[in-house]
Amino acid sequence: MKKISILGATGSVGSQALEVISNNPESFSLCSISAGRNIEKLEEIITTFKPALVSVVDDDDRKSLASKYADIEFLSGKEGLLSVARDESDMLLTAIMGSIGLEPTLAAIESGKDIALANKETLVAAGEIVMERAKEKGVSIVPVDSEHSAVFQCLRGEKLSEMKRIILTASGGSFRDLSREELADVTLEMALDHPNWSMGRKITIDSATMMNKGLEVIEAKWLFDADVDQISTILHRESTVHSMVEFTDNSIMAQMGTADMKTAIQFAFSHPDRLPMNNPMDLDKLSQLNFKPMDLERFKMLQYAYDALRTGGTMPAVMNAANEYAVAKFLDGEISFTDIEKVVELRMDDHNPVKNPDLETILYYDRLYKSDMR
Amino acid sequence: MKKISILGATGSVGSQALEVISNNPESFSLCSISAGRNIEKLEEIITTFKPALVSVVDDDDRKSLASKYADIEFLSGKEGLLSVARDESDMLLTAIMGSIGLEPTLAAIESGKDIALANKETLVAAGEIVMERAKEKGVSIVPVDSEHSAVFQCLRGEKLSEMKRIILTASGGSFRDLSREELADVTLEMALDHPNWSMGRKITIDSATMMNKGLEVIEAKWLFDADVDQISTILHRESTVHSMVEFTDNSIMAQMGTADMKTAIQFAFSHPDRLPMNNPMDLDKLSQLNFKPMDLERFKMLQYAYDALRTGGTMPAVMNAANEYAVAKFLDGEISFTDIEKVVELRMDDHNPVKNPDLETILYYDRLYKSDMR
Repeated sequence: MKKISILGATGSVGSQALEVISNNPESFSLCSISAGRNIEKLEEIITTFKPALVSVVDDDDRKSLASKYADIEFLSGKEGLLSVARDESDMLLTAIMGSIGLEPTLAAIESGKDIALANKETLVAAGEIVMERAKEKGVSIVPVDSEHSAVFQCLRGEKLSEMKRIILTASGGSFRDLSREELADVTLEMALDHPNWSMGRKITIDSATMMNKGLEVIEAKWLFDADVDQISTILHRESTVHSMVEFTDNSIMAQMGTADMKTAIQFAFSHPDRLPMNNPMDLDKLSQLNFKPMDLERFKMLQYAYDALRTGGTMPAVMNAANEYAVAKFLDGEISFTDIEKVVELRMDDHNPVKNPDLETILYYDRLYKSDMR
Repeated sequence: MKKISILGATGSVGSQALEVISNNPESFSLCSISAGRNIEKLEEIITTFKPALVSVVDDDDRKSLASKYADIEFLSGKEGLLSVARDESDMLLTAIMGSIGLEPTLAAIESGKDIALANKETLVAAGEIVMERAKEKGVSIVPVDSEHSAVFQCLRGEKLSEMKRIILTASGGSFRDLSREELADVTLEMALDHPNWSMGRKITIDSATMMNKGLEVIEAKWLFDADVDQISTILHRESTVHSMVEFTDNSIMAQMGTADMKTAIQFAFSHPDRLPMNNPMDLDKLSQLNFKPMDLERFKMLQYAYDALRTGGTMPAVMNAANEYAVAKFLDGEISFTDIEKVVELRMDDHNPVKNPDLETILYYDRLYKSDMR
């Protein structure tokens, strides 16, 4: 029985992770969770799973929940997240969105538990620090993203030294067929409608701008100890091939499946074993898979991510913070879709990167470039 | 340095294996070889590689070669094949065609050497016996066929108990787009022109009749300890995906690459390591992969193979022998393309299968059903 805790239990990945736990009561149990402001959904989870510890964002929510559920410990804010990260579970699923996941992830690593990593901003902002601490503590960081889970699976039984190239597939998001000119007319509603995957709002926008793939490129660098030149991307509209790895002998391993995040979540939990699932791909309906080289002029955000990774230091954290800022503004209706790119570009141009930053420096720039900077 | 011997050195797989050895002089050396009647090519190999032991089919060839190359031991016939199989090498590549490969393969296993298996008739005729002996002797049987090499690679780092299904891809051969009626007009010349792979004559015909895929289904059963219902096939005209494995969690691993048998040959030699190669797949040119369910009414030979595997006992050996007989007759211009199927069907109908046959029984029926049976 593996005891699992979840940061971000009411979100899209969190909810699917709870389904995975429900479906495998003999393999997994839920320990602690954190949630945001969706208290209604949180109460459903509390009723069903009876976690020992629950953390919420708002202290008023904490108080009213504590008066309602006497057997459960409630906490709030950053201390709450850290307490969930440090509980007695075996694995922490980091399914909260944004660089706020960084400190709890490090806390979980320090307490010696494995990480099911769904919070990609953690590695984007502080990949070197996180991977080093994980290595020191001997904990596994298992990716939950379908792309990185695919790469992780392609690398099973293989030697990293024999890996030539990681090929991340990208559906291209909602607007893969629009020209740069046509992007100017994209509305919030259009941007939130992803063709293949059902995901949270922020990642859906990141997917539409292709920043999501950029974050994945940076994440892949740290997860798989790859050079930037070893990470390529390819457009694959069907999202059937979740990603590939090319080896020194030019053999390419690919992982495929339905567009169901539960597969990667369950694998992160069950690894190194695989457990049965009920979402088979209908191979009789597999008829055509399309691939196209990625155009980095068209998808500027991906180019920015490669640039940030090559620059290194604090630049990936700044790019990520600028993107979090811009996407929030777009979701609030304050800027246009193409403004997201412009904000990221301007803030990256503005930043004078610091080499080999420590955690405090990274967190400082993360806060700065996520703010209005006025 | 791995010492390698080759049965069938002048054939298509044999020649490509010699290229692999040439390209990796620090990893592989050639020990002994057998050849058929292509003495000119054999002499080129002798001059280049200077093997210690050479076996030929014809004793007159042996005599004239022995008088010409004083430093090399020459043998002929079945004893020659068995001597190559029992030499001091680490691995035997069985690249001769037909069930004649069976006894030398068993001899090599008895002498404790690993097998790079390119002779698929060995496992088709006597899979249970061969795999049992290999297990007893602790030798590895590494497939050289691109499809089985793909499955073997998909299973690296995985548990056989978590394998749900093997999916062998089939290009469909030269005549995949012809109806059964149109097949009647197929000539020898047409049948020898395979769209994707450069191979020997017998396997090219087997590929056109789809018997090749049938032999592969049976081979997969023994190589990967699969039930017949765990082995499926799918039409994939590009031959880019070399085969796939679906696991219990519905994750599908696929192995891809250029249509170059040297990749699988080299991997069989270098396994568990991978060595660099110079035949990368141009991913910028990867644009479309097509898949189609296999129609077993259209491709009767594949249906016969499933039938033979379900019947078991001597039936797969008889099916294989009947096919070897029929293909030889077609290559000699004595029967038509569609007659190949009819011969196989008639001979299978004629056979009353023996359960749990020993090697002698298998060899008896192999000889019988490969003969004119008059």
